[in-house]
Amino acid sequence: MATVIDGRALAKKLNQQTSERVQKMQENDGITPGLVVIIVGDDPASQRYVRNKHRTAQRLGINSIVKQLPESVSEKELLKWVDQYNNDPTIHGILVQDPLPDQINEKDVTRAILPEKDVDGFHPVNVGKLFLNDSTKYPVSCTPKGIMTMFSEYHIELKGKNAVMLGRSAIVGKPMAALMLNQGASVSILHRLTKDITEYTKDADIIVSATGQLHTLTKNDVKVGATVIDVGQNLNEEGHLVGDVDYDDLFDKVAYITPVPGGVGPMTIATLMQQSVDLAEWSIHRDN
Amino acid sequence: MATVIDGRALAKKLNQQTSERVQKMQENDGITPGLVVIIVGDDPASQRYVRNKHRTAQRLGINSIVKQLPESVSEKELLKWVDQYNNDPTIHGILVQDPLPDQINEKDVTRAILPEKDVDGFHPVNVGKLFLNDSTKYPVSCTPKGIMTMFSEYHIELKGKNAVMLGRSAIVGKPMAALMLNQGASVSILHRLTKDITEYTKDADIIVSATGQLHTLTKNDVKVGATVIDVGQNLNEEGHLVGDVDYDDLFDKVAYITPVPGGVGPMTIATLMQQSVDLAEWSIHRDN
Repeated sequence: MATVIDGRALAKKLNQQTSERVQKMQENDGITPGLVVIIVGDDPASQRYVRNKHRTAQRLGINSIVKQLPESVSEKELLKWVDQYNNDPTIHGILVQDPLPDQINEKDVTRAILPEKDVDGFHPVNVGKLFLNDSTKYPVSCTPKGIMTMFSEYHIELKGKNAVMLGRSAIVGKPMAALMLNQGASVSILHRLTKDITEYTKDADIIVSATGQLHTLTKNDVKVGATVIDVGQNLNEEGHLVGDVDYDDLFDKVAYITPVPGGVGPMTIATLMQQSVDLAEWSIHRDN
Repeated sequence: MATVIDGRALAKKLNQQTSERVQKMQENDGITPGLVVIIVGDDPASQRYVRNKHRTAQRLGINSIVKQLPESVSEKELLKWVDQYNNDPTIHGILVQDPLPDQINEKDVTRAILPEKDVDGFHPVNVGKLFLNDSTKYPVSCTPKGIMTMFSEYHIELKGKNAVMLGRSAIVGKPMAALMLNQGASVSILHRLTKDITEYTKDADIIVSATGQLHTLTKNDVKVGATVIDVGQNLNEEGHLVGDVDYDDLFDKVAYITPVPGGVGPMTIATLMQQSVDLAEWSIHRDN
């Protein structure tokens, strides 16, 4: 029977720590971490995400600003706002909410954010530092970073282990692979072109799934005692939120598993909050 | 019986193309690609490498400058030279030869070189773009890039193939893994902490070895028809230059193999020349 990795409980604990760090920073340095989320247009899902981030940030004592721009905003105008926040010393983290309308090149926007204010960890220079296992401090994509916190809290060792990353996205797959590699795992990065995923997963100690496909893993695909992390957020036939893997089927065979909902999801937003405070701290004691 | 990937012949062909590109650029744009190699101290091996690069560059028509600095040079002084070449419009590529003396932080030097003049492809922003499979033009570490040219010239397909990278260095293992992943391979990155390398290599279509260890692979470790690329440059008991893998033992089982010497080695320097011209071309038509 698996140990369930309780993302909600961990996120609560992490948020508590973040809140305490905010208080200490205010007391010791007179600084309140500032996070701005720029949102373009009225997409209901995006609005909900942003509201969620805003409320959590406020609750933890972070100075949270939501900058709403119209769907018709030009790239130039959006970049003007990014530039303004780049130059605002009270703002330590800048995030531009996905998705963006067609007239805006997302890559231009990602690169316009100062690397030291890149709270999402998407800027190429931060991605490069991660891949190079750089020893300085830099932000990292929040979902993979949150998963690393899960490993650490549950004492799941990566060194010398066989890890499989299902998916190679810029936001999850690639940074997750780099983080596991940096911790000493052997890492296989698989994706939709991989012919036989089971050939890899059946010997894996750790499997992270970010495929966006239902039934990615069943118990015949994994070995006894594996750890399975499910990043998937899919709707099943009944319209319920489910992950990539067959949770119930795997449950008796694996050692650790994350549920959906209540696993990776809550950790992503808690990690965003943590990293907002990291950026504020690093701005005080810059080492790179 | 394997097809031998002839690095010397390929390098010769690539150099010929590079030489023609240099001529055309001079005719069409009035520009000669400029490459500066900064070398610190008198290490004989480094001096030999630099002389080799310098002669090849000159032969291909590249404006090659070797800047010799004393072993005792300060980091500040070295960075002053980097800055001078950064600002020199006749210089398109800057390379600082490894190794550097203790008083100099190699990372500082790598980051001081403008990303668009980073002919080695070591700057974090270029590494980040590679890992993100960015669609713009940027330099890539020369040894892995040269290996990709080998794959292309010998029509060795990567898409959907199982690839194994033995070694996770910043110069070879990581960029090589990223390049193969970007071409659609499933990539496993292994290293000295990997418990059972054969578990991976026995099912691999493509294996790149950069372990610096003799006898990394024998015929029992690979499947029939695999491609084996040997980046190793080791001295055996008799003092001869040999690769990582047991070439003779593998020869009858694999489909493609690189010899040492005469495989990856010659392609690295030819790729450096190619990339010097790339940087000069991109400086004329900047897209990123």
